[in-house]
Amino acid sequence: MTSSLRDKAIACKDAAAAIAGLDTKAKRNLLSAMANALAADEDLVLEANAKDMEAARANGTSDAMLDRLRLDASRVAGIVAAIREVAILPDPVGITTRRETRPNGIVVERVRIPLGVIAMIYEARPNVTADAAALCLMAGNAVILRGGSDAMHSNIAIATALRRALKIIGIPEAALTLIDDPSRETMVELLQLTDVVDLAIPRGGEGLIRFVAEHARVPVIKHYKGVCHLYVDRDADPELALALLIDGKTSRPGVCNALETLLVHRDMASSFLPRAIARLRELNVEVRGDEATRATVAGVSPASDDDYAAEFLDLIIAVRVVGSLDEAIAHIRRYGSDHTEVIATRDLAGAETFIRAIRSAVVMVNASSRFSDGGELGLGTEIGISTTRLHAYGPMGAESLTVERFVVRGDGQVRHPRSD
Amino acid sequence: MTSSLRDKAIACKDAAAAIAGLDTKAKRNLLSAMANALAADEDLVLEANAKDMEAARANGTSDAMLDRLRLDASRVAGIVAAIREVAILPDPVGITTRRETRPNGIVVERVRIPLGVIAMIYEARPNVTADAAALCLMAGNAVILRGGSDAMHSNIAIATALRRALKIIGIPEAALTLIDDPSRETMVELLQLTDVVDLAIPRGGEGLIRFVAEHARVPVIKHYKGVCHLYVDRDADPELALALLIDGKTSRPGVCNALETLLVHRDMASSFLPRAIARLRELNVEVRGDEATRATVAGVSPASDDDYAAEFLDLIIAVRVVGSLDEAIAHIRRYGSDHTEVIATRDLAGAETFIRAIRSAVVMVNASSRFSDGGELGLGTEIGISTTRLHAYGPMGAESLTVERFVVRGDGQVRHPRSD
Repeated sequence: MTSSLRDKAIACKDAAAAIAGLDTKAKRNLLSAMANALAADEDLVLEANAKDMEAARANGTSDAMLDRLRLDASRVAGIVAAIREVAILPDPVGITTRRETRPNGIVVERVRIPLGVIAMIYEARPNVTADAAALCLMAGNAVILRGGSDAMHSNIAIATALRRALKIIGIPEAALTLIDDPSRETMVELLQLTDVVDLAIPRGGEGLIRFVAEHARVPVIKHYKGVCHLYVDRDADPELALALLIDGKTSRPGVCNALETLLVHRDMASSFLPRAIARLRELNVEVRGDEATRATVAGVSPASDDDYAAEFLDLIIAVRVVGSLDEAIAHIRRYGSDHTEVIATRDLAGAETFIRAIRSAVVMVNASSRFSDGGELGLGTEIGISTTRLHAYGPMGAESLTVERFVVRGDGQVRHPRSD
Repeated sequence: MTSSLRDKAIACKDAAAAIAGLDTKAKRNLLSAMANALAADEDLVLEANAKDMEAARANGTSDAMLDRLRLDASRVAGIVAAIREVAILPDPVGITTRRETRPNGIVVERVRIPLGVIAMIYEARPNVTADAAALCLMAGNAVILRGGSDAMHSNIAIATALRRALKIIGIPEAALTLIDDPSRETMVELLQLTDVVDLAIPRGGEGLIRFVAEHARVPVIKHYKGVCHLYVDRDADPELALALLIDGKTSRPGVCNALETLLVHRDMASSFLPRAIARLRELNVEVRGDEATRATVAGVSPASDDDYAAEFLDLIIAVRVVGSLDEAIAHIRRYGSDHTEVIATRDLAGAETFIRAIRSAVVMVNASSRFSDGGELGLGTEIGISTTRLHAYGPMGAESLTVERFVVRGDGQVRHPRSD
């Protein structure tokens, strides 16, 4: 129902002012109450999740999807713990980032304020309902949650518990609004409420992200795929490079900060590649390589152009031998996704050239791509990883859900003093 | 021609890497060469502008529009001087804003990089061609300029001069690309080049902004109208409040940081309004007021709801008497445009309440709304004023044409160390 969505969204916008006005202590109390309410509703949440699981199984949903959807007591406890972790994060709201006294005596400050209303668009993971709500509220924003239909019962149960906490604390429940109509029409309507929604954040597969980007009229921060590269430079420490390769490719291949492509300097190829590929194969990684790689190591299947552009999210890696740092940079520019790139090198000047030439959100020198994560980089937690070079670029924490504005204090200064 | 726009845009994107790689000194040299080239082409620019003026007059263009379009030797000199001013601004690119060593020893830095390719969409002012180009390039970005058809000859002449400077310095001229096809179809195509354009900035009337917002698929930072308020609190200094009122309303009524509405606390109305309105009338300002204002001062015409929402851009002001600070805040929330609001008060606690409750880009305490300007607030110059609460909010300078990304340096750290 069209009018119903708009009414809900406007109620959410009205509630945003109440959230924005809370001080740090009040927001911590709120999140603590949310965690308690969700813990108390564990049985209801698991019951609701069982309904979702049953329907998903009946629909022939894949095992991987079923695993994303599934909750149990331990996972609910994990969600509760995650809310408590967000509650102790530094509060970005109200922070004065800069202060300057101008020649005329006005004092100009830049101060962080919340964005307002954030629309989260996501798929089958019910934990996003609580994670996103906690982070948005901690940063002083109201939130509209639009999860996938597969997880609707679970999401309703979680949101019901969280909203009870808002009510207990005396905040309008509309500050945490779940859209219970999973139709695409309603999503499109939500994405076009330009007078209500300050930011939409889609999280999910490429299809969802593209759909949101196509239909949104509100600002969107996109999180496309991660085609992360490791470049092993001419004078890299081979032990170090091998450790980064194995961690990046095998520690969790299904995530966006896993490595997808290995680039090796020609001078390192004959010494490094045989060891590296042998180790990858021990760990069941399929290796696809260019001609130089295949000439160096037997049994490597050929890598296509598509392989170099692919986010495998699996135990597969594309390998290429390059003639120089510049050739490695050119490869990443052509095939990269602006997510995370790594150089292994002992040449500090070369590392600086790599950093300057690569425009990805995260560039690592002698560290694993798997650190490209809000928690690992010191943001506490993340609401996603932006590959849009605007507002936020890379992992987004609570601060990325705020914006700097100007506060000016004077004692009567005017721009054009009048003597009459 | 469709393919031609795309080709030009891709050439601009390729050139962006060259601009992003320039150090501060090289960018200053480039802007200096641009200023010299434009000064050398003064005659050609004035000739081209004469053609635009002739065509505009033949089309019956209004005097105000003709004035925006018109160039003379002094205005060209002003544009040249503005480029030289941008050339000495602090360079935001490469600045490390934060550095943290994580417990595992990786050093995480946040470093500013350029956005990439910026599309400026504007109307009849030919100076924007040079101003926007200079600021975008100084912040390390390539720029695509799409001005209005009225100023096309002038824009081509200016861009030709500026591109000659790029060529002299050895930068691909495509880094400064002027679209010489002023059709709406081409603008829409430009606004949908999501793989090329990192940010579109429309500058012009509300019609243009709405058109861009409707058709863009690339990120847009919008600059809507400024309905700026002055609230004179119960215990304001009347002299100070009067000075802010006169400066805000009359020093330049046609700009977006001029005052449009005066709110006065009930307890101040009988003493302040008669003097204030008499002074406004001396300065030929038409006053429209609510019932309380009209009961206090004779001859005030009634203010409608539309008047309170209006950006008059003229010597007209809407006045309302409010019962409290909260009522003033509620009025601004309802009618404001998130641009700039001012409180005149001696009550510091009340001022803080006002600052917290008002979510506009700029909030002033005892200072004129006319300071809501990049130059006045210390940004050097501005490319526009954002009323979008994302990325930048308020006046946007060179820094707003960059984004922070992550640079991580380690000595071999991995996320999941393996003992095998």
